[in-house]
Amino acid sequence: MTAAPQRSGDSRGSAGRALDVVTLGEAMLRLAAPPGEALEAASRFDVHAAGAEANVAVTLARLGFRAGWVSKVVDDPFGRRVAGEVRRHGVDLAALIWSPGGRTGLFFIEQGASPRGVSVYYDRAGSACSTMAPEDVNWAYVHDARWAHLTGITPALSDACARTTARAIHEAKTAGVRVSFDVNHRRKLWTADRARATLAPMLDGVDLVTAAEEDAREVFRLDGNARDLAARLRALCHAGAAVITAGPAGAYLAGADGVHHEPALAGEVVDPIGRGDALAAGLLWGALDGDLRAGLRYGVALAALTQTYRGDIGWITRQEVLGALTDRDRETRR
Amino acid sequence: MTAAPQRSGDSRGSAGRALDVVTLGEAMLRLAAPPGEALEAASRFDVHAAGAEANVAVTLARLGFRAGWVSKVVDDPFGRRVAGEVRRHGVDLAALIWSPGGRTGLFFIEQGASPRGVSVYYDRAGSACSTMAPEDVNWAYVHDARWAHLTGITPALSDACARTTARAIHEAKTAGVRVSFDVNHRRKLWTADRARATLAPMLDGVDLVTAAEEDAREVFRLDGNARDLAARLRALCHAGAAVITAGPAGAYLAGADGVHHEPALAGEVVDPIGRGDALAAGLLWGALDGDLRAGLRYGVALAALTQTYRGDIGWITRQEVLGALTDRDRETRR
Amino acid sequence: MTAAPQRSGDSRGSAGRALDVVTLGEAMLRLAAPPGEALEAASRFDVHAAGAEANVAVTLARLGFRAGWVSKVVDDPFGRRVAGEVRRHGVDLAALIWSPGGRTGLFFIEQGASPRGVSVYYDRAGSACSTMAPEDVNWAYVHDARWAHLTGITPALSDACARTTARAIHEAKTAGVRVSFDVNHRRKLWTADRARATLAPMLDGVDLVTAAEEDAREVFRLDGNARDLAARLRALCHAGAAVITAGPAGAYLAGADGVHHEPALAGEVVDPIGRGDALAAGLLWGALDGDLRAGLRYGVALAALTQTYRGDIGWITRQEVLGALTDRDRETRR
Amino acid sequence: MTAAPQRSGDSRGSAGRALDVVTLGEAMLRLAAPPGEALEAASRFDVHAAGAEANVAVTLARLGFRAGWVSKVVDDPFGRRVAGEVRRHGVDLAALIWSPGGRTGLFFIEQGASPRGVSVYYDRAGSACSTMAPEDVNWAYVHDARWAHLTGITPALSDACARTTARAIHEAKTAGVRVSFDVNHRRKLWTADRARATLAPMLDGVDLVTAAEEDAREVFRLDGNARDLAARLRALCHAGAAVITAGPAGAYLAGADGVHHEPALAGEVVDPIGRGDALAAGLLWGALDGDLRAGLRYGVALAALTQTYRGDIGWITRQEVLGALTDRDRETRR
Amino acid sequence: MTAAPQRSGDSRGSAGRALDVVTLGEAMLRLAAPPGEALEAASRFDVHAAGAEANVAVTLARLGFRAGWVSKVVDDPFGRRVAGEVRRHGVDLAALIWSPGGRTGLFFIEQGASPRGVSVYYDRAGSACSTMAPEDVNWAYVHDARWAHLTGITPALSDACARTTARAIHEAKTAGVRVSFDVNHRRKLWTADRARATLAPMLDGVDLVTAAEEDAREVFRLDGNARDLAARLRALCHAGAAVITAGPAGAYLAGADGVHHEPALAGEVVDPIGRGDALAAGLLWGALDGDLRAGLRYGVALAALTQTYRGDIGWITRQEVLGALTDRDRETRR
Amino acid sequence: MTAAPQRSGDSRGSAGRALDVVTLGEAMLRLAAPPGEALEAASRFDVHAAGAEANVAVTLARLGFRAGWVSKVVDDPFGRRVAGEVRRHGVDLAALIWSPGGRTGLFFIEQGASPRGVSVYYDRAGSACSTMAPEDVNWAYVHDARWAHLTGITPALSDACARTTARAIHEAKTAGVRVSFDVNHRRKLWTADRARATLAPMLDGVDLVTAAEEDAREVFRLDGNARDLAARLRALCHAGAAVITAGPAGAYLAGADGVHHEPALAGEVVDPIGRGDALAAGLLWGALDGDLRAGLRYGVALAALTQTYRGDIGWITRQEVLGALTDRDRETRR
Repeated sequence: MTAAPQRSGDSRGSAGRALDVVTLGEAMLRLAAPPGEALEAASRFDVHAAGAEANVAVTLARLGFRAGWVSKVVDDPFGRRVAGEVRRHGVDLAALIWSPGGRTGLFFIEQGASPRGVSVYYDRAGSACSTMAPEDVNWAYVHDARWAHLTGITPALSDACARTTARAIHEAKTAGVRVSFDVNHRRKLWTADRARATLAPMLDGVDLVTAAEEDAREVFRLDGNARDLAARLRALCHAGAAVITAGPAGAYLAGADGVHHEPALAGEVVDPIGRGDALAAGLLWGALDGDLRAGLRYGVALAALTQTYRGDIGWITRQEVLGALTDRDRETRR
Repeated sequence: MTAAPQRSGDSRGSAGRALDVVTLGEAMLRLAAPPGEALEAASRFDVHAAGAEANVAVTLARLGFRAGWVSKVVDDPFGRRVAGEVRRHGVDLAALIWSPGGRTGLFFIEQGASPRGVSVYYDRAGSACSTMAPEDVNWAYVHDARWAHLTGITPALSDACARTTARAIHEAKTAGVRVSFDVNHRRKLWTADRARATLAPMLDGVDLVTAAEEDAREVFRLDGNARDLAARLRALCHAGAAVITAGPAGAYLAGADGVHHEPALAGEVVDPIGRGDALAAGLLWGALDGDLRAGLRYGVALAALTQTYRGDIGWITRQEVLGALTDRDRETRR
Repeated sequence: MTAAPQRSGDSRGSAGRALDVVTLGEAMLRLAAPPGEALEAASRFDVHAAGAEANVAVTLARLGFRAGWVSKVVDDPFGRRVAGEVRRHGVDLAALIWSPGGRTGLFFIEQGASPRGVSVYYDRAGSACSTMAPEDVNWAYVHDARWAHLTGITPALSDACARTTARAIHEAKTAGVRVSFDVNHRRKLWTADRARATLAPMLDGVDLVTAAEEDAREVFRLDGNARDLAARLRALCHAGAAVITAGPAGAYLAGADGVHHEPALAGEVVDPIGRGDALAAGLLWGALDGDLRAGLRYGVALAALTQTYRGDIGWITRQEVLGALTDRDRETRR
Repeated sequence: MTAAPQRSGDSRGSAGRALDVVTLGEAMLRLAAPPGEALEAASRFDVHAAGAEANVAVTLARLGFRAGWVSKVVDDPFGRRVAGEVRRHGVDLAALIWSPGGRTGLFFIEQGASPRGVSVYYDRAGSACSTMAPEDVNWAYVHDARWAHLTGITPALSDACARTTARAIHEAKTAGVRVSFDVNHRRKLWTADRARATLAPMLDGVDLVTAAEEDAREVFRLDGNARDLAARLRALCHAGAAVITAGPAGAYLAGADGVHHEPALAGEVVDPIGRGDALAAGLLWGALDGDLRAGLRYGVALAALTQTYRGDIGWITRQEVLGALTDRDRETRR
Repeated sequence: MTAAPQRSGDSRGSAGRALDVVTLGEAMLRLAAPPGEALEAASRFDVHAAGAEANVAVTLARLGFRAGWVSKVVDDPFGRRVAGEVRRHGVDLAALIWSPGGRTGLFFIEQGASPRGVSVYYDRAGSACSTMAPEDVNWAYVHDARWAHLTGITPALSDACARTTARAIHEAKTAGVRVSFDVNHRRKLWTADRARATLAPMLDGVDLVTAAEEDAREVFRLDGNARDLAARLRALCHAGAAVITAGPAGAYLAGADGVHHEPALAGEVVDPIGRGDALAAGLLWGALDGDLRAGLRYGVALAALTQTYRGDIGWITRQEVLGALTDRDRETRR
Repeated sequence: MTAAPQRSGDSRGSAGRALDVVTLGEAMLRLAAPPGEALEAASRFDVHAAGAEANVAVTLARLGFRAGWVSKVVDDPFGRRVAGEVRRHGVDLAALIWSPGGRTGLFFIEQGASPRGVSVYYDRAGSACSTMAPEDVNWAYVHDARWAHLTGITPALSDACARTTARAIHEAKTAGVRVSFDVNHRRKLWTADRARATLAPMLDGVDLVTAAEEDAREVFRLDGNARDLAARLRALCHAGAAVITAGPAGAYLAGADGVHHEPALAGEVVDPIGRGDALAAGLLWGALDGDLRAGLRYGVALAALTQTYRGDIGWITRQEVLGALTDRDRETRR
């Protein structure tokens, strides 16, 4: 019995049953040189599939939520791989758009140690997903979810994708679906000015907006400390809630009742990529349970656990998240 | 548009829509020493998940059919792995039974070259799936499929599994679901006498029964050449159709209109395991299209393609099957 | 000449010559996902053979002692592998029991980083070794050793194994062989109550008993600080000496002349498993040299070195142990 | 002394000394799933750098000739890798064009066994090399070589590349540099009609033209057997010599003195890619020695040796080629 | 009970019990580029330990015989590795000579496919074992065996090794130990003339001499077909028996009762190295059982099985050898 | 344009153009057990090519300087590999000496974690390079460089190599080439007394001498703190400048204008080997730019970056060095 809700993502055919969350965006092949090796030299690349919105759907499906992912993938080995790696975790792909041709976006990773950081090289221009237009999407699928989750990466990919993102927010609002938006500013894809011009109208009135501290400053020209930024981002967007992530300093949640701080959960960093997506998934967990503060706690735990796995994805269960938080609380009390 | 039917396995929520095929049986972790290395010596084992009935569901899902798999897996990393590797291909797992405890069956493979063959070592006794009893299964799920596919492995696992297999056939017949049964005799699990005593009643009146030539002789005490065996197996089981597989000699399909022979499709053997499951999937493809002879052709092509992949599964598409058959026909005509 | 004593484990045929130490217990295949990868996802598992008592014998053989290992292994690739990986270090296997059938115990490892720890999943129920009964063992082999080393894992495996452990202690005492016992409580195998009921009678009058701090509290209901626990464990067991291991706080040795503390030797942790077995081997080294305090020093050095190797075993020589202690002393004096 | 000519590619600074051969064209990263694994599934891709014209330069440099390669590569890890893997064999890169930005072309390989062939997926559109225009090239570098080698791949990449190829032939002819051209028709890049329209004018009057049998038929609408095709291709192009490659049937060289046939050199196929480039290198070896017939012999030996190496490149020396031919001749005489 | 003789190599302390076979010679680290990769390019080398005489001892120990190996190894990680890899199979190392310094011989392997063969590069000059002199060896150990096995490799290593080989034969004969000698001519170590001058006196009167067909011709200047060579080699050496191996043509055994032919056992070649040592072990198996003709049968089966394993060693059991022969006989009768 | 100087190492044929730096010394194959694995146990060794002087040339070529390397390598796969791995970075090999026979030096690495350090085992005695005599070298090549870089390793290899080193310094001075010398004392190759006797005359009057703090004390019997040592080493050698490296304490540069200190740049250590060579390359960068103080800064940055790469070589660009220094300065200012 207890396992049943956790596997609800597999339940098909129950006509009246909505998804908990639908996310929309691109996933790519991720090709990484082994740790300590240069992309210029490595004799093999480790292969994963990853993308911010798909990562969020995967994490939610692993936690037992009914998560769906909307994207456009190529009907070739690369697109099937991306789809398969998302689906294996139980994410619903019923609204996935299969393109008969085109290329799959790629990114390459060199896992440097300090003073070298991790280097990411995108090769995603002209991908099939960058052609995803509003008319490609089955909007009824989105209407049937409780939350929709989007990021600032998608509108940076192309005009078509920007229109699709705007349309998704519009469709969600119209259908009473709540909207979560992770700013996720990508300097390699567009400038802060273009990001602001595009994102500001989209973000107006969303239920939850999340941004890294530096993105809040750079894209939205906000200032103050991280606590201030959370409140100001919420105000700027007329959002239900706003979250500012501040790395090792933790995260700040601004809601109607003020700003709440959650310290980061300490741990080792095996692979930092995907940390922010894990935090976003935690927030949505809380949101679905009607407790965003709890969601922030889940988020920092998910982020700390996810960065211990190679690849963007943490192979995490609900119990592990709760266990990590219990351990943290126990140590803190000492 | 053309991609839509091929991805139908992803379509959820369309309430009135049945699965094409449901299969039921155990999947295990498969741990293989690299080619040329001994299990006694290898520093690593390559890991896959596999099981005859799951393999059939996977191949059908890859071909675009709506396939579901019923089994009992442990809610731990091993069971989640098995489930995930099946689901990634698009197999529906809505009726999968999650066990809170227990062990996952294992098998080990040493990939010998001639005069050594491939050695398989089972370590599956006492697995969670071996406790799968009729009352564990959501039979309504089976009722909603066009075909049910079972094998002679499952009843060899335990009494509970034998009862579940018999019940599955009963439920299918009652609900008008057609039944396919692959004899798949496992000498390491039970004797031919026990197999016959258990399987004979189950097989009575199935729509399609498949057996290797040596299994037909050993389990059912039939004799004659492969062509005779097909006819006699059909008669013995009062089956709609019977198929005898005869390795490089191809396969024989006995139906109401006599016995049809399909030569094997020549090729290299990278990994022979899973070949028979691929043939079974091909037969079901034909059966779903209402053309078992075509199914036999699909089956020999799927078998030849599958054995070129390491692991039980062939990562095959519908076009590749049709392409391989076209190439064969072209060469044959020369 | 100098090499001769170090290789004494190879000396055969010298009829009157006893072994230095005989250990008795199960060894298993150890299957580990590569660091940073999930068991649920890893495409390969790294394979080792390991078991607490075999680990102790291996370390002692590497240090130049004549060590023998008694266990029951299957005469198939898995059992031969376990035997071979123990024998390669020079451990004598003349009394190993070869079982014509049965399964080899397994354990799986996921090498998590903080806040995830290392996860161990046992799959050892029903192993050949769990059927090892007193009548299987050649007790004359045990009689011919200077020390016998046992652990609290073996009696947790089965009744047969519990009887074999008790008999081993009895045989040793009768023959004037000294007894070392490492409590090694395994929560996944039995409860503290059952452990206490079984172990307490066995431990009465042994020459050396070792326990982790938390095991002393949980199994034997002792309290106080680590120093107190050592004295109380010695008193409870009427043991010649007792050792409490307290992780980074080092270890405490209680003997007739009071309690001696040895700080842990700092270092990096590549793989924590096998650390305790290394400490036990160090104690036996000291015991064989007639100096348990020196043995505790050897033990903390062996533990620190062993945890820098992947796998349970440290590929260590006597000189490396002495060198590590010299380096530590030099730094401490600064 | 004997080593000196073999290493002549390293000799710098000898002002009056020309290169033996300059080749011009794109090299890419080659990402291959391990043998027997699907691109859709492989956890790692093996990485090489390769391109038809670079392969020819590499093979010639390994044989002791002074070979240079002209291309446009990105000044990032991917471009540096491509350059480094070509340079390590001793190819001169003095005229390589470094692009401050852009992408490096990729191709993916799935190494199927029969009845699956090897699948190649290009992802090279929009690469830095596809922007290589005539004005980017240091034509003086080309003028200083004895032979220039080009292929039909380059003009298929872009208009800029087509113009560069045409210009290269013009520059070569003007400067008295002999021209070798390998048709290498790529169906995935352009149609036979477009290829013919572009290539026919370029090929007029070249010194050596090479084509696969099917390319001669498809692109140049020639017919007849392979021997006929060689003669007709030579006539069509007003070429000094023409070579038709006919797979296992060997190759045909049409010159002023008629058509000469060279049987293929039998052997195992580890990796078929790069075989044709090896043959082209052999022809140039012969051309540089003034004996094209000998070149054809070198070519079939180089092709047979190259296909035993994973990757496009054969790590071959001059002695190995001569040894393989000696062995073949000895066996043939028996 | 049945397992006991098979594990007799572990039996220690039975003072009156001799070894079945003692072999003497060098073992090295074997470093191999992965199949299809060049030594010039491979990013990793696979590591094994191997040497002709050690290989024979390993195979015999695996078959259940009490085998000992005499050699000189360095007391460092490389020597310990060589010793450990031999000992893990149950070979007795009581007379192994540990050198405090020196280097371990190496050989490198490039596993080429046809028309490239397998290339072996020795780097063994000046190894510790090449300094093994008669006075280093515990000759009593040799006296206590039923057979001594030597090869023509050892005397080629150094004068000290040549003297040690001659002395070993002398000691064996004096003590009534039978002598087996495998000529194993190594062209890279010495000339045929030097080999003949050194080996001829050694071979006089041995019980069993084995040589490859080409070695018999080249070293001993014998002629005739393989059958003739066997008889002539026996006569030349005044040997009890002589065996000529003729590759795919099988092997010829010349004894007092004439020449017996045994065809080779067909199979795939994964790694040809170690094949001859496997045949030698088979002959010794027969010799120990008093049936050299049976030994030749065992030998061809062991050779065919061994070449299916990567590395010099076949991980083979007695049953597998008998099974392979039974299968062969069954097929031959058809 | 900007790329041109960075690739100047590729420029051939410009008769009047000197190299920036020529280095002379041995490079070897480097065989490393994977991290956490013992050399005694690892199933594979990772392969690189490395040598102090070659490492310096590689780093300089990567930074855009025209660097040449003089050495003696074998014309076989091992020597070609060493040459190829140096050449791929753009180092000029026009004066490399190819030996028709001989062996390539090797070193083995075990990458221990604390309290085990990294263990290095040399197997380089008798290498081809150890026979490099003054008459083997094309001294005109050295004359045409701005700087020559040598180390104290080369004279430790053999008398021939010592004479070659002395001659190189003599030739350089005579031709107005500046001389850099890195003491690099190798305790495993010779004693401090022999090193001093050989090196002292060589070092007299060089332009730059570099030594580790402990080498300055042990070889040259200097004392004082690191700052003192720099001044005293400079005085002892009558050198233009002297550098003392003091590990985490940074490095000290003594010049005509006093002693300058540069702190080490903090970071993680993936592989410590090659750090010193990176620092030497940084000093030469500064020397070529006429600013040794800047060179010391480049050196500490290069050392910190290089130790984050597995293998001796850092795959570093000029921008990365400048970026790391900028980051360090920014953090320091906070």
